[in-house]
Amino acid sequence: MAEVGVIMGSISDWETMQEACAVLDELSIDYEKEVISAHRTPEDMFTYAAEARERGVKVIIAGAGGAAHLPGMVASKTTLPVIGVPVESKALQGLDSLLSIVQMPGGVPVATVAIGRSGAKNAGLLAAEMIGAFDENVAGRLTDYRKTMVDKVEGMRRDLRGL
Amino acid sequence: MAEVGVIMGSISDWETMQEACAVLDELSIDYEKEVISAHRTPEDMFTYAAEARERGVKVIIAGAGGAAHLPGMVASKTTLPVIGVPVESKALQGLDSLLSIVQMPGGVPVATVAIGRSGAKNAGLLAAEMIGAFDENVAGRLTDYRKTMVDKVEGMRRDLRGL
Amino acid sequence: MAEVGVIMGSISDWETMQEACAVLDELSIDYEKEVISAHRTPEDMFTYAAEARERGVKVIIAGAGGAAHLPGMVASKTTLPVIGVPVESKALQGLDSLLSIVQMPGGVPVATVAIGRSGAKNAGLLAAEMIGAFDENVAGRLTDYRKTMVDKVEGMRRDLRGL
Amino acid sequence: MAEVGVIMGSISDWETMQEACAVLDELSIDYEKEVISAHRTPEDMFTYAAEARERGVKVIIAGAGGAAHLPGMVASKTTLPVIGVPVESKALQGLDSLLSIVQMPGGVPVATVAIGRSGAKNAGLLAAEMIGAFDENVAGRLTDYRKTMVDKVEGMRRDLRGL
Amino acid sequence: MAEVGVIMGSISDWETMQEACAVLDELSIDYEKEVISAHRTPEDMFTYAAEARERGVKVIIAGAGGAAHLPGMVASKTTLPVIGVPVESKALQGLDSLLSIVQMPGGVPVATVAIGRSGAKNAGLLAAEMIGAFDENVAGRLTDYRKTMVDKVEGMRRDLRGL
Amino acid sequence: MAEVGVIMGSISDWETMQEACAVLDELSIDYEKEVISAHRTPEDMFTYAAEARERGVKVIIAGAGGAAHLPGMVASKTTLPVIGVPVESKALQGLDSLLSIVQMPGGVPVATVAIGRSGAKNAGLLAAEMIGAFDENVAGRLTDYRKTMVDKVEGMRRDLRGL
Amino acid sequence: MAEVGVIMGSISDWETMQEACAVLDELSIDYEKEVISAHRTPEDMFTYAAEARERGVKVIIAGAGGAAHLPGMVASKTTLPVIGVPVESKALQGLDSLLSIVQMPGGVPVATVAIGRSGAKNAGLLAAEMIGAFDENVAGRLTDYRKTMVDKVEGMRRDLRGL
Amino acid sequence: MAEVGVIMGSISDWETMQEACAVLDELSIDYEKEVISAHRTPEDMFTYAAEARERGVKVIIAGAGGAAHLPGMVASKTTLPVIGVPVESKALQGLDSLLSIVQMPGGVPVATVAIGRSGAKNAGLLAAEMIGAFDENVAGRLTDYRKTMVDKVEGMRRDLRGL
Repeated sequence: MAEVGVIMGSISDWETMQEACAVLDELSIDYEKEVISAHRTPEDMFTYAAEARERGVKVIIAGAGGAAHLPGMVASKTTLPVIGVPVESKALQGLDSLLSIVQMPGGVPVATVAIGRSGAKNAGLLAAEMIGAFDENVAGRLTDYRKTMVDKVEGMRRDLRGL
Repeated sequence: MAEVGVIMGSISDWETMQEACAVLDELSIDYEKEVISAHRTPEDMFTYAAEARERGVKVIIAGAGGAAHLPGMVASKTTLPVIGVPVESKALQGLDSLLSIVQMPGGVPVATVAIGRSGAKNAGLLAAEMIGAFDENVAGRLTDYRKTMVDKVEGMRRDLRGL
Repeated sequence: MAEVGVIMGSISDWETMQEACAVLDELSIDYEKEVISAHRTPEDMFTYAAEARERGVKVIIAGAGGAAHLPGMVASKTTLPVIGVPVESKALQGLDSLLSIVQMPGGVPVATVAIGRSGAKNAGLLAAEMIGAFDENVAGRLTDYRKTMVDKVEGMRRDLRGL
Repeated sequence: MAEVGVIMGSISDWETMQEACAVLDELSIDYEKEVISAHRTPEDMFTYAAEARERGVKVIIAGAGGAAHLPGMVASKTTLPVIGVPVESKALQGLDSLLSIVQMPGGVPVATVAIGRSGAKNAGLLAAEMIGAFDENVAGRLTDYRKTMVDKVEGMRRDLRGL
Repeated sequence: MAEVGVIMGSISDWETMQEACAVLDELSIDYEKEVISAHRTPEDMFTYAAEARERGVKVIIAGAGGAAHLPGMVASKTTLPVIGVPVESKALQGLDSLLSIVQMPGGVPVATVAIGRSGAKNAGLLAAEMIGAFDENVAGRLTDYRKTMVDKVEGMRRDLRGL
Repeated sequence: MAEVGVIMGSISDWETMQEACAVLDELSIDYEKEVISAHRTPEDMFTYAAEARERGVKVIIAGAGGAAHLPGMVASKTTLPVIGVPVESKALQGLDSLLSIVQMPGGVPVATVAIGRSGAKNAGLLAAEMIGAFDENVAGRLTDYRKTMVDKVEGMRRDLRGL
Repeated sequence: MAEVGVIMGSISDWETMQEACAVLDELSIDYEKEVISAHRTPEDMFTYAAEARERGVKVIIAGAGGAAHLPGMVASKTTLPVIGVPVESKALQGLDSLLSIVQMPGGVPVATVAIGRSGAKNAGLLAAEMIGAFDENVAGRLTDYRKTMVDKVEGMRRDLRGL
Repeated sequence: MAEVGVIMGSISDWETMQEACAVLDELSIDYEKEVISAHRTPEDMFTYAAEARERGVKVIIAGAGGAAHLPGMVASKTTLPVIGVPVESKALQGLDSLLSIVQMPGGVPVATVAIGRSGAKNAGLLAAEMIGAFDENVAGRLTDYRKTMVDKVEGMRRDLRGL
């Protein structure tokens, strides 16, 4: 049963959003992934948001670019936490995506992460943290994940010494 | 029968959106006005958008601020032209509203006007222009309206000479 | 007889503006296209704007980049609706084009769309929506166009499942 | 026992952060509040972050302005979810706060909300949503909260009719 | 006979543009001032620009705000140098005015100065410098003007010592 | 004898500044060109600015990027008109160059043109316009130059018809 | 003998720059203060910069707003460290000041601090830190200063508990 | 014994930060270099900052990108001067890095330089200037370095004459 729903406005967002899925895989958290477009398939979006909780989903991750309405509109139809990933846009390089997602009016929050692939990766980690606040196993895996990050820094130190 | 639907995300947007209504009054174009919040009343928004054409509405004007999703989401549910008015926001002064409205992805357009009250006024005029493209009477009133604008410049010139 | 006039400040804008023409072709809406430069051929611009209505044009689409004055100046000489397409500029990537087009003073509106090719495509659709508000045939074609957009999302879903 | 920790870099942030506390009060969620400065009391910050989980905290809300390092640095010392509130700054009106909080590198996420008081309110709601994903009572209160939001829109509609 | 033409899009720009006139008065340079709106009185604008040279004008100073098209459009109709003053706008504080004026395409230059009253003052000085390049008397007055600026700094130094 | 002085902060600015020289060549206006760095050769800069008028220079064109101080500092040492060309910078793409040049305090103007090569071209044209305000021959050549611009638009129109 | 030179482009910058002086007073570091305008008194600026080291100055703090050239030009004439304080400007609120100061080309550094009064305060502290790197007494006073900052946080905590 | 500590958040910052090291090499100033991540190795960061002074370090140079917390957090744990280098980020090209580093609250300064490689080079020079304020040998080498910069301009002048 999927605990995390990863949705995106277009298949072209997959290059970004796969980072979220890769982290969830690495932390052994079940997720589902789907293309749901706020502007092209608004009913599907509402249905998805309205039914996610009863299907057992705990967190929704939504990625979109430009005038990015998907995260906020999904959030308007569920009381599950929604994480918004601003996908890098062509002309304004994701600044439009970021502001469209983060500047939500009071009442309907979206948990926004950084623009692009780093943000998508962090969306996966943030979803895991939300689950790990109530699930010791996931919390333990997150602690391990942090240790591998420290190890990577150690590796970088060795590399730098060699430069 | 209302030819123009003027909607806004909150009563606090009325200070801005009344400019659109004032112009429509001045041009004797029937309109309806309503508070419809994309994030608080998403179903109402969809119903409004889906039924507007059959009720005789020719153009929808939607004003919203911050992560302004109302114009774009209404546009996703109708093939009527939708005019988006970026309401000035507190911290970022409407830059977030503007980008959230104008940067729509290909497929679902929103006709965006300037930030704030000037934009709302122009939204009313733009709606009239769309109607006036097919209605000689409205076109004539628009031509008259332009003449009063020239008269105002004449008045300014006299004022400047007096300074 | 052309119902839509598509104009651009330079032949270099064609790469962007062809998206508007492609959509109009797809929707079987007659249009004319021309290079008209606000700064190099200002008289031609005024003549074009002043005569468009009597030639049967219902909507003008104008694309320009940088200090983009074409859409607003055309709008100053006609009461037809004018759609402005901010062409992506080199240094500031279209932010200058966008602000030069959208921030029109009260009295002379320009219906602004997104920066670049997506915006041009949406300009074509917006012109069709304006016509479709009064022409059932065009409205029907727009409804069909939306259905093909849903089909494309379905295709993306199949693609994502295969990833 | 506090389930949410609300921290801020300075007492001057309270004007913003009280919105988070007000929502948590309204939803009957226990929280603690404290001034913890990333730059003036870095050890306290680390201690707070390192001990939060064992004290029963499920979510941390951290508000800061300008070069806002508190949310990200707290996140670096805990695997609990951290919500960052960009407090409006004087010169750049919170754009600096927003970018300092949201643009975290891959590995250490911060769930960022809007600039200022609306963002703080949404931080409280987002914390409640994270808890409500695992606690039916809180989820129920969130559903009720959403209903009061709809009621407020109904009130606005009556007000608008009276204008 | 006026050597400098000072024009502005609206009487509301006078608060800014009077700084240009004050400097021209101070330097005993003849000027004329007029309200000419690019969008409301485009023909007047073209006539003004086309006839300025033959009337003896050497430099045109044009102030406008928002989507500020006046300086660039005047420049398109004359080969006299045109100085553009970006008037501070409400929402975007003149950034839109600045980009609309300065980012002119190759072929039609506008000499752009700073946003607001300082810019208008400098527009007056710049016009005087252009004339002073060919007129020893004006050049001499500019040299004197610079000396008063040094005197003012001397006064400031005394003031600072007293603080 | 050079009527225009073209200076730049680094040889790397030549790629941009050659556009100014090309236009001056085309209009048969004598100019000199030199590398003068505000930060590396400040005395040379002051000497250049102080002596330009007596050498017969009528206008100085100065190009620089990033924290671009060359145009404004040259302007502080001469009452000749100074045209500033914001050279496109790497990270901020010339926005820093533009603001560093255009936002001069009241008292010392810089005539600023667009970022990059188009701006440099326009700097050459603007210098010619300043000279042409007092020199009928140059004015005539500028009028001819404008005609070639119209011819180019005519050529573009033929090209577009062929697309 | 002054170890720190505090200079500013105008007496109006004193409201900002007094924060630097207040900190230097508090840390018992000798300083001198003066109005030196890059654009109005360029020779004074060069003389000041060229003679500062031999007079015993160890660090120069320079504050300026808009197209802020004072810090960078002073830095071009001395190898002493120069700290630049971006004074908040009217239209662009110090963003222009910041970019004009911080984006120096390779070869001539300016140590830039935050926009406005906080930045000026930090300029004083930074100057003290530079001296304190070589002077144990000053280092000790800085350590004490940090302790008072911690005490202030303690006071804030008591205040927050009382709210 | 290292007088300058050069640290960076990731090995990927080395491409930028090597410019600082190259300048320090050129000026014969001893330095150490290390990867220290604010978010992945926060304890190491605190230890490094706390122990730097007693190890003889006089200045710390810290480079980081995005939500760049390393320079400010190091500064919170030492009274040594800390120079922050904003590394160019992918989406926002270092604007986020710059604001995260420079907009420090009053009390804890970071000496910020330009975005990217030029900034890193200047960080090395600035560190040398801080040392050179107290060390005549280093001051002499800086004076020599400036002379080579003048020589390079002379070379550019010859190159330009050849173009």
